[in-house]
Amino acid sequence: MNPPKTDARRHHDPEVRGFASDNYSGVHPEVLAALTLANGGHQVAYGEDAYTENLQQVIRSHFGPTAEAFPVFNGTGANVVALQAVTDRWGAVICAESAHINVDECGAPERVGGLKLLTVPAPDGKLTPELIDRQAYGWDDEHRAMPQVVSIAQATELGTVYTPEEIRALCEHAHAHGMKVHLDGSRLANAAATLNVPMRTLTNAAGVDILSLGGTKNGAMFGEAVVVLNQDAVSHMKHLRKLSMQLASKMRFVSVQLEALFARDLWLRNAGHANEMAQRLAEGVRAVHGVEVLYPVQVNAVFARLPHDVSERLQKRFRFYFWDEAAGDVRWMCGFDTTEDDVDAFLAALKEEMAR
Amino acid sequence: MNPPKTDARRHHDPEVRGFASDNYSGVHPEVLAALTLANGGHQVAYGEDAYTENLQQVIRSHFGPTAEAFPVFNGTGANVVALQAVTDRWGAVICAESAHINVDECGAPERVGGLKLLTVPAPDGKLTPELIDRQAYGWDDEHRAMPQVVSIAQATELGTVYTPEEIRALCEHAHAHGMKVHLDGSRLANAAATLNVPMRTLTNAAGVDILSLGGTKNGAMFGEAVVVLNQDAVSHMKHLRKLSMQLASKMRFVSVQLEALFARDLWLRNAGHANEMAQRLAEGVRAVHGVEVLYPVQVNAVFARLPHDVSERLQKRFRFYFWDEAAGDVRWMCGFDTTEDDVDAFLAALKEEMAR
Amino acid sequence: MNPPKTDARRHHDPEVRGFASDNYSGVHPEVLAALTLANGGHQVAYGEDAYTENLQQVIRSHFGPTAEAFPVFNGTGANVVALQAVTDRWGAVICAESAHINVDECGAPERVGGLKLLTVPAPDGKLTPELIDRQAYGWDDEHRAMPQVVSIAQATELGTVYTPEEIRALCEHAHAHGMKVHLDGSRLANAAATLNVPMRTLTNAAGVDILSLGGTKNGAMFGEAVVVLNQDAVSHMKHLRKLSMQLASKMRFVSVQLEALFARDLWLRNAGHANEMAQRLAEGVRAVHGVEVLYPVQVNAVFARLPHDVSERLQKRFRFYFWDEAAGDVRWMCGFDTTEDDVDAFLAALKEEMAR
Amino acid sequence: MNPPKTDARRHHDPEVRGFASDNYSGVHPEVLAALTLANGGHQVAYGEDAYTENLQQVIRSHFGPTAEAFPVFNGTGANVVALQAVTDRWGAVICAESAHINVDECGAPERVGGLKLLTVPAPDGKLTPELIDRQAYGWDDEHRAMPQVVSIAQATELGTVYTPEEIRALCEHAHAHGMKVHLDGSRLANAAATLNVPMRTLTNAAGVDILSLGGTKNGAMFGEAVVVLNQDAVSHMKHLRKLSMQLASKMRFVSVQLEALFARDLWLRNAGHANEMAQRLAEGVRAVHGVEVLYPVQVNAVFARLPHDVSERLQKRFRFYFWDEAAGDVRWMCGFDTTEDDVDAFLAALKEEMAR
Repeated sequence: MNPPKTDARRHHDPEVRGFASDNYSGVHPEVLAALTLANGGHQVAYGEDAYTENLQQVIRSHFGPTAEAFPVFNGTGANVVALQAVTDRWGAVICAESAHINVDECGAPERVGGLKLLTVPAPDGKLTPELIDRQAYGWDDEHRAMPQVVSIAQATELGTVYTPEEIRALCEHAHAHGMKVHLDGSRLANAAATLNVPMRTLTNAAGVDILSLGGTKNGAMFGEAVVVLNQDAVSHMKHLRKLSMQLASKMRFVSVQLEALFARDLWLRNAGHANEMAQRLAEGVRAVHGVEVLYPVQVNAVFARLPHDVSERLQKRFRFYFWDEAAGDVRWMCGFDTTEDDVDAFLAALKEEMAR
Repeated sequence: MNPPKTDARRHHDPEVRGFASDNYSGVHPEVLAALTLANGGHQVAYGEDAYTENLQQVIRSHFGPTAEAFPVFNGTGANVVALQAVTDRWGAVICAESAHINVDECGAPERVGGLKLLTVPAPDGKLTPELIDRQAYGWDDEHRAMPQVVSIAQATELGTVYTPEEIRALCEHAHAHGMKVHLDGSRLANAAATLNVPMRTLTNAAGVDILSLGGTKNGAMFGEAVVVLNQDAVSHMKHLRKLSMQLASKMRFVSVQLEALFARDLWLRNAGHANEMAQRLAEGVRAVHGVEVLYPVQVNAVFARLPHDVSERLQKRFRFYFWDEAAGDVRWMCGFDTTEDDVDAFLAALKEEMAR
Repeated sequence: MNPPKTDARRHHDPEVRGFASDNYSGVHPEVLAALTLANGGHQVAYGEDAYTENLQQVIRSHFGPTAEAFPVFNGTGANVVALQAVTDRWGAVICAESAHINVDECGAPERVGGLKLLTVPAPDGKLTPELIDRQAYGWDDEHRAMPQVVSIAQATELGTVYTPEEIRALCEHAHAHGMKVHLDGSRLANAAATLNVPMRTLTNAAGVDILSLGGTKNGAMFGEAVVVLNQDAVSHMKHLRKLSMQLASKMRFVSVQLEALFARDLWLRNAGHANEMAQRLAEGVRAVHGVEVLYPVQVNAVFARLPHDVSERLQKRFRFYFWDEAAGDVRWMCGFDTTEDDVDAFLAALKEEMAR
Repeated sequence: MNPPKTDARRHHDPEVRGFASDNYSGVHPEVLAALTLANGGHQVAYGEDAYTENLQQVIRSHFGPTAEAFPVFNGTGANVVALQAVTDRWGAVICAESAHINVDECGAPERVGGLKLLTVPAPDGKLTPELIDRQAYGWDDEHRAMPQVVSIAQATELGTVYTPEEIRALCEHAHAHGMKVHLDGSRLANAAATLNVPMRTLTNAAGVDILSLGGTKNGAMFGEAVVVLNQDAVSHMKHLRKLSMQLASKMRFVSVQLEALFARDLWLRNAGHANEMAQRLAEGVRAVHGVEVLYPVQVNAVFARLPHDVSERLQKRFRFYFWDEAAGDVRWMCGFDTTEDDVDAFLAALKEEMAR
């Protein structure tokens, strides 16, 4: 079995990068090496393999002895499985209006999970106990979907982060009302890196009951995990994952990627690097007259407001997305693979287009 | 970035194989090479990448100019997305009682898709026009979920295959009743290999409207595709895939695997080899007194009936599953990586245990 | 406010009756009188009214001190609310293939409840422990929807009844496997009447956990109740009823109808009369050469097989339904309002058409 | 069959009325008379009866020749059936945050219909084209549930009404974006009465595609109808109603109530009277120092702000609900049966409690 010829099969230029999304990146070489390592021979399908078993130890070392990981395919899957695990059929989820589960999952929480989302406007993407209270009532009123869980994202969709104290306060508030707390951690690594704390400090140590742990955006090929932190808060995960169509047959290849991200702190190296590149980018952008940086740049995202025509010209050179096209707001993301040269080239292009 | 040390990170023996499932196998080296090739640089997420674009050409070359592929994560996802695409909210699916969608998907078609399955007993796993007619009625009766699609598997869960003529007859029958036809092709490659026909002959050339095209069981790491064959029969796939939580962000890594399976007929080499190993296994088994081979061995599965205690002893040496434990029926699967030595060793063990 | 003129507003002949369905009947005068009585003034909506409160006492007097009634609109609603109350999101329901929930509810259990039905062929519509065992396995297998409840109908769709001992055996068997038991009692009154036992004997005294108690088919205008018999087996009913769109605002008018059916044993008088009429009909039919009565006639249904053309001619004189048109099987139902003259006239017509 | 004795069976005082809800009322005598009239004899179940047939004519005379009515049990059922009829599986509904479908249906639109609600804050409960535009975008973006219908209520949950011109503008705006318009008309009669226009002017004449037509709140015992106004905009209603568990077996008793409401303009008499009583109430309340009337009083609801302790004392004398307890806001509803004396007695009590 000879390997395929390189040239004919490669359809892209591996040197081209942009600022559109941390999902545009490929796979970190250490993750790819781990996938190769896990190959060969037979391993029991659907999670009884040695890599998934080993992942549990890794997860426990990071999230404490009661933590348990359920590898899944993607972030939407992780969120919907996790939220079902902490709600009854009549349950509702309190979240920010800007939450990924509300705006970016095509209604999967509602359609697959039968979940009602009770949203709250949160200008910087972060919930507070006061904001939660706008929706935290009426548990006994059958006309109202019952608020059973608060879902927060760390980092948020707007690139902001909660301090550990803020998360703790949210959790205490939610628990005091009999609600559980879910954390959408598709960029948890970035938040931990910027705050310089272990991921545990932001999750179970702060009271979070269940976690969607991201892998894809931080250097994996695919794969996330629902991490159960509070076993008492969570119902039967096994069947929920399968019925939600998130059970991988050759699960070893999901688990080994997550393991690789934890090995030698690759998760932290990748996230820290992406954050640094975003800082470099933000600093450069702030120096460009006429471009406004919109939110605190705390992880790997820079949101900016600039003239619409400049954005359009710039998009022809580097792909990125409008966040709020009417307002002229755009989002620029850095990834584990963003280089200083990438940032500098982008800034130069931005300046050129602003100067036209 | 140095690659991880091999020894510390490998948790399994890459030389051990069994007969439990084609999902126990790893990834074919050509697929792994393709994954490596697709890495590096940025590619648009969620399917606008060069690999997914190229996959469309490959799919059209195999399934005709109207075919369109929608890569997804797994087989259950492919089936549920495909079935939603050919049904209304009030639709029902006629299928064999033994169909994977009925017995092995934890109710995902019902729960995620809101689909009613109208099942028919099919002794060898295959539907016929007559069997379809047991459920094909009552379209105007609102008390009955409306039969809108017939779902068949090729090969079936029992390792049997339909001839092209049989599929054509089913499709004509279904279409004559205004129903569409879905084909669960998680092992379509094996069926095509055994029948020595192109996959097209078994699908759109025979009238199939929509296909779940398998990759995982035939040497991929993960990944299948819903292939729309009859564009007129199918509603909006794009949003259906996303709301069903089957939209991969770094889709290039799904698409390139499928592409690799088609390149230099890897799909056929893999499937043909697995089928051959099953033939070798079946021949050997038939020579063992006291063991009965249950169905025609047409693809890579051998079903057998043998004394329960023998199975239990044998399972300690090679992992495999009971199919019907009460009856003493077991299933032995071969994969793309099964070797003649594997088969011979297994047969030797079977003889030993039978002789005890 | 003058009442409307009778003639202009009545669009039907109140003296015409047939044998198509016990749903073709109108409302028993005592029920109508009770509706009038409950009218006037204000009563708290959604179940906090005096009639619903009183219904609880009536229900407890019939079904024991732990029973609790949740009035709903119709039978499908009662079944789907009840089944959700005794299953998790991953739960499945074991039932007969001929069960109403499987064949006559347009997939509502699947679509609204997300329930998987695990069906068993039951020639006379009745489950047995042995038949249950065909589907009662695999609780730990996440690929399989988890069997959590056995649903039986008393009387069955085929007009047959379980003895109290049979129900007890089923319940013991189900409970021994950790499953609960739901009884679809849309014709429970008819079963109790024919067996000459209190309804309690067929339900909680036999081990049934939750009951769909019928009203409509036994003389009500509309309205059934989910009756929780085993409080420990059932989760939160209140929100389940509302989210299933079965919460009546002016609930007093549901509750008072059920109360009226229990008052002075109207339920028993109505059901007993309908049963008697079916016996009279069956006896007459048996005397007609060429017409075969198909099942034991135990409640208010007579199933018969006769020449197709005879049925068609007869249908022009009395509306009724084919049960299995290919086989020539028809169903004739008697109601609380069927008279001896109705039966005799129908028998005469049958004889005439057979003689043509 | 003697009628039951009045005293023993009546559990409430038919002379006591309050201001809590138009659902606390009973049934208008003309509706009750119509129910009696429709009784007796057999009528085909599930909608093939003479009363449902006649209702179609009545509906066409009010809503034009293409209108078609599908009687259902309750308002939540009507809304969820109607919204499913104008959406695909991936569809979303744009509505006001305060909409009944968003806040008062326990998530039934999401859970039963799989619908995503895209909400907009609307201070007076009314949408505008500008407010719609906050959610009307991204039709091609599969990450976003696709906006396919705008749902408005006439009158709104806050007792405000749209002018015909406002509805027409909304419909034109929605249609220009390829979206349909649903109108929740549980109090459409009240809106028509206050605007002194036919219901048609507010619905199909203004461009509304599908209507939930209320009956219960305007004097019926139970029963609403989904009225299809634009047949081209709507998919298969028949099965949708059944699978949503809203198909009444003895449908004649739903249809005849709606017919009775239309006969001799009972709908208008009832609604107009309730509106007048609300005007009388509002005028009286405005004269009480310290109590603020909150919204324009346009139908049968009066929202007011008053000291919390006063409300609590007043609630001991007349049952009513807080609307926003933290703000001290309450809602007082008038019904078809509210009398001038009721209003005056309530105002006297309010004054007394304010004076304490």
